[in-house]
Amino acid sequence: MYADRIQQLKSSAIRDILKLTARPGMISLAGGLPAPEMFPLDALRAATERVLTRYGSQALQYSVTEGLVALREKITRDLNAKGAACTVDTTIITQGSQQALELLSKLYLDKDRVVFTENPSYLGALQAFRLFEARITAIPSDEEGIRTDALREALKQEKPAFLYIMTNFQNPTGVSLSPARRHELLDVAREHALLIVEDDPSGELVFEGEPMPSLYSLAKGQNIVYLSTFSKTIAPGLRVAYAAASEEIIGKMALAKQGTDLQTNTLGQYIVNEYLESGKHRGHIDLIRRTYGSRRDCMLAALKRFLPPTVTWNRPRGGMFLWLAFAPTVDAKDLLLRCIERNVAFVPGQEFFPDGTGHNTARLNFSNASLENIEEGIKRIGAVLQEGQSAGAEPSAMIL
Amino acid sequence: MYADRIQQLKSSAIRDILKLTARPGMISLAGGLPAPEMFPLDALRAATERVLTRYGSQALQYSVTEGLVALREKITRDLNAKGAACTVDTTIITQGSQQALELLSKLYLDKDRVVFTENPSYLGALQAFRLFEARITAIPSDEEGIRTDALREALKQEKPAFLYIMTNFQNPTGVSLSPARRHELLDVAREHALLIVEDDPSGELVFEGEPMPSLYSLAKGQNIVYLSTFSKTIAPGLRVAYAAASEEIIGKMALAKQGTDLQTNTLGQYIVNEYLESGKHRGHIDLIRRTYGSRRDCMLAALKRFLPPTVTWNRPRGGMFLWLAFAPTVDAKDLLLRCIERNVAFVPGQEFFPDGTGHNTARLNFSNASLENIEEGIKRIGAVLQEGQSAGAEPSAMIL
Repeated sequence: MYADRIQQLKSSAIRDILKLTARPGMISLAGGLPAPEMFPLDALRAATERVLTRYGSQALQYSVTEGLVALREKITRDLNAKGAACTVDTTIITQGSQQALELLSKLYLDKDRVVFTENPSYLGALQAFRLFEARITAIPSDEEGIRTDALREALKQEKPAFLYIMTNFQNPTGVSLSPARRHELLDVAREHALLIVEDDPSGELVFEGEPMPSLYSLAKGQNIVYLSTFSKTIAPGLRVAYAAASEEIIGKMALAKQGTDLQTNTLGQYIVNEYLESGKHRGHIDLIRRTYGSRRDCMLAALKRFLPPTVTWNRPRGGMFLWLAFAPTVDAKDLLLRCIERNVAFVPGQEFFPDGTGHNTARLNFSNASLENIEEGIKRIGAVLQEGQSAGAEPSAMIL
Repeated sequence: MYADRIQQLKSSAIRDILKLTARPGMISLAGGLPAPEMFPLDALRAATERVLTRYGSQALQYSVTEGLVALREKITRDLNAKGAACTVDTTIITQGSQQALELLSKLYLDKDRVVFTENPSYLGALQAFRLFEARITAIPSDEEGIRTDALREALKQEKPAFLYIMTNFQNPTGVSLSPARRHELLDVAREHALLIVEDDPSGELVFEGEPMPSLYSLAKGQNIVYLSTFSKTIAPGLRVAYAAASEEIIGKMALAKQGTDLQTNTLGQYIVNEYLESGKHRGHIDLIRRTYGSRRDCMLAALKRFLPPTVTWNRPRGGMFLWLAFAPTVDAKDLLLRCIERNVAFVPGQEFFPDGTGHNTARLNFSNASLENIEEGIKRIGAVLQEGQSAGAEPSAMIL
């Protein structure tokens, strides 16, 4: 049962290690936080003032489980402008996308029920699925995203409750599903009547080119649950995210949400709605894109300058993360311990792999640290890697 | 599994009927809403402005799962002033008390696991327990609250995961557990190592006398999970509530909350914290007490004036609800349908009874309507009851 799983969670060593990243002087490239200096603070303050003046107590009272209608109308308009075909009745506001993952787990998972994910996949999703005792089958991914040939093979073996996938700038790898793969994936899904949960928290954070059409819009919503959030484009502390799916699925999610927390906080929904009405949202997203884009470039330059040639990495076109592979002899968890002594942190990749591989990989966040800290942080990781290489005498203490 | 239970939920007719209470002209004594004109709007607006000026982006960023430390310190001080012995590490902020009930369900319930409740009990709790497929055993209650003799008997038959109880101004009956029963209950609990979940959303809303000590403070936290909220004393739309229990239980709740929604909204927690710092909280609670007290008195006077002598009701010393019993021949659901035609609504009591009894009972809310509407609403219910008595000709359409 769920409680047994909670007990097991306690043993996660990595969580305890990462608590150390809060200490002063630490440069953390580990978290998944957006940059607080990028929150549209003045506009949010003005929006909050307008909300409390215009709506008063209404913005502080209990509200409907599905979420503020005016906000859902705006979300609907935006999704439909991108090619979807949704209505207010096919959307629901959730307490962050984490809650949507949890509600879907409640609706579709159970002991030993199978769920398909990418390999690697988002840790918050894996955690939600595991707490409901689902069995996770990880489908191999490459630089174009999930491998549809491997998915097709896996579907011959077992029928999952759903496939969970992050289509844009995936957490942890930063990889996006390529246009060709999007179409292939939808073909496979149609053939097998496969439900897809498309998680898209960062799709707006594009540094190059245009955002790609979501599976949800390509499939006109057919058998897709689409999740997104204002956490990365406005502010995460408001906890306002949303899901779009068939009216039947949204109806079930609303019933589950009612038993879970009644509703998402009313004030946060009003503030997001008012902020969107101010017309500043699109321009602000452009500012975030430019800022995170330059941080990514800074990280790429520092990686090239400070890391040994045994290390490889990718170049995501957007989002908040990039992905490193150390030499196969490196255990990224051991490396992290050494790095923390030097006041720099990242997330070892292995925890993101449901199949337990990826011991020599790491996720680096470039959205939260300053340019100076990104450069200094990578420099420190490089120094630790060099040390490891030159030491060489005591195998038990060795990292490389 | 959970999903099957969601399907069953869909069939709740009462929920659909109560949707009609949103139509214009309706006097609803059905909801459980605090009075919006009682929200400390100006003080909350000032607190919000201070929060955004003083803390800026920090109040909009991700935050720890357990909740804002400064707020938990204030909660701790308040609970300890009332005789408890808690610390910041033994409290957690939840997304409303509903989330606390859901987290506890996750931690302690499972298919056919038994949970004890009062009879009748709070619908939101029953719903949460049922979604986790628990089996509910309802312990008889009277005008002093849960009957400890009946509890003792029930414990001979089965060992529940916990006992869920609302100790003050219970939803739905408005009854409080008497001082003698509190001590008896703790004796029984100690004898049987029974975990008690004490839900206390409205304990501050006392119209007469002083608040009674909680089980949590009487037992010095021993084997008690205490739940309370700022929904009734500040504003429910902020969704800021809290739980206090042993460090072990709070630790497990935090792990479950992490998988559920990561954290309660940061801004709401900061606003509540800042509002509490303003020192206006206690005085404002006094204002709510006086206002709700006069609404209760208005309802009692109207009941006496307009309802036939076959109807009986109680006189709660606080809270938001009072409890009616019609003549045994009355089905309150049928009566509600007739009342809705006359634009007045209440909640039929049967749904609150896990054992399916209580067909002739009803919950009336007195916190949300104006004095005029309370009087007019009761007058309309009285008129419908008189009609029913005088009609008498067609049994199929008859209510009394």
